[in-house]
Amino acid sequence: MHAPAFILVNPQMGENIGAAARAMLNFGLEHMRIVGPRDGWPNEKAVAMASGAGRVLDNAMVVDTTDQATADLTYLFATTARPRGMVKTVMTPERAMEEARSLIAAGEKVGVLFGPERAGLENDDIVRANTIITVPVNPEFPSLNLAQCVLLTGYEWRRQTVTAEAEVTDTLRNRLAEGREVDALVAHLTAELDARGFFWPEHKAEPMRTNLENLLRRRALTDAEVRTLFGVVRYLAEREKGDTRGRD
Amino acid sequence: MHAPAFILVNPQMGENIGAAARAMLNFGLEHMRIVGPRDGWPNEKAVAMASGAGRVLDNAMVVDTTDQATADLTYLFATTARPRGMVKTVMTPERAMEEARSLIAAGEKVGVLFGPERAGLENDDIVRANTIITVPVNPEFPSLNLAQCVLLTGYEWRRQTVTAEAEVTDTLRNRLAEGREVDALVAHLTAELDARGFFWPEHKAEPMRTNLENLLRRRALTDAEVRTLFGVVRYLAEREKGDTRGRD
Repeated sequence: MHAPAFILVNPQMGENIGAAARAMLNFGLEHMRIVGPRDGWPNEKAVAMASGAGRVLDNAMVVDTTDQATADLTYLFATTARPRGMVKTVMTPERAMEEARSLIAAGEKVGVLFGPERAGLENDDIVRANTIITVPVNPEFPSLNLAQCVLLTGYEWRRQTVTAEAEVTDTLRNRLAEGREVDALVAHLTAELDARGFFWPEHKAEPMRTNLENLLRRRALTDAEVRTLFGVVRYLAEREKGDTRGRD
Repeated sequence: MHAPAFILVNPQMGENIGAAARAMLNFGLEHMRIVGPRDGWPNEKAVAMASGAGRVLDNAMVVDTTDQATADLTYLFATTARPRGMVKTVMTPERAMEEARSLIAAGEKVGVLFGPERAGLENDDIVRANTIITVPVNPEFPSLNLAQCVLLTGYEWRRQTVTAEAEVTDTLRNRLAEGREVDALVAHLTAELDARGFFWPEHKAEPMRTNLENLLRRRALTDAEVRTLFGVVRYLAEREKGDTRGRD
């Protein structure tokens, strides 16, 4: 197993099982196990809701008891909304999935228990877990449903495994302008403005030039953008030159 | 505002608006704005679905257009599932909410745009945003719905605020321009260029407008910079007007 199994314990509504399957597949998770689904198995509503994620249901292990679902696992997390008065480590989904990644990298087989919609996991199931996961919700409105809890845990799993994707700039698809191109733009714009008395009063001219240049430079421009800005300046200024020439 | 506003653009199903309200309140977010909800407002199904989070709907700002919803905001994120070929920084929800926290700590007003269920945000809305948020989903099954996208973004907001201490970036000492100020600049520059036949040939006019607007927005401008750019456009364009008048 290269990813944790998500184990739904006594889920009630088929729709929620289907939504959980979708949420899992959104983040590349495919190992679902289902313990004693209330409405039996297979479940049409689950299939309908899962739509594109049907194969997660097709491949799900469906068993009667939690111990069957966890028999082959070597490390178990349990998700709960509130403390249960047990002496157990409580982790955020982030920390827990970081831990899961290390465990799996070391060859361990990891599972995460999710309780039924209304009541959540019973203490008998929680006690089986090595570690508890609690999502840090607003204590005044802690109403995550089953599929949301699966979604957030799956999201953290994927965050752990897909690294260094933190920030991409579409800019990289376009070539950034070379220094000399930006220099030319700055010079051109400054000259046009200067000719029109923009840099005034005199004692403020220098800081005004600096600010304007900074505005153009503080975000790297692509070469396409530099060309666009050249065009903007030319079009804005153009008619005026024609007129000047006409007056000469 | 001590937290970002979440702006639902043209949401279709009332149930999804209600689910978004719940997802927000789960993570302590209460500033919802709604642009042109398909089924009008108020919406019974939204209220029914929101249940305990009804006050998020009660206090929601409901307007007709995205520019109304963003007029007072100084920094805007847009959530999209796929790249749009615009030169904009793309962040994970984590990085984006880290950024949002810094911005808000510095007194900025931050919003996050969420598109309608089926199609997502249109380019006209995306171009308004300073930065794009994309959830790192499984590329083979990237099917997050509206409320899930709200949930993950809200979760990252809370992670940022619960765990980390506020830090203010030096570059943010200047106040950022409000949405309406940038709108006015874009409109002014576009009109001046349009009057001079800049957007030509005709079949390229629309992408040219989008690129130009994007160029102005992809890096949040300070209000001083917006004033400077107004001045630049005015000075470049001004003499021409005077000359025209002179010739009449």
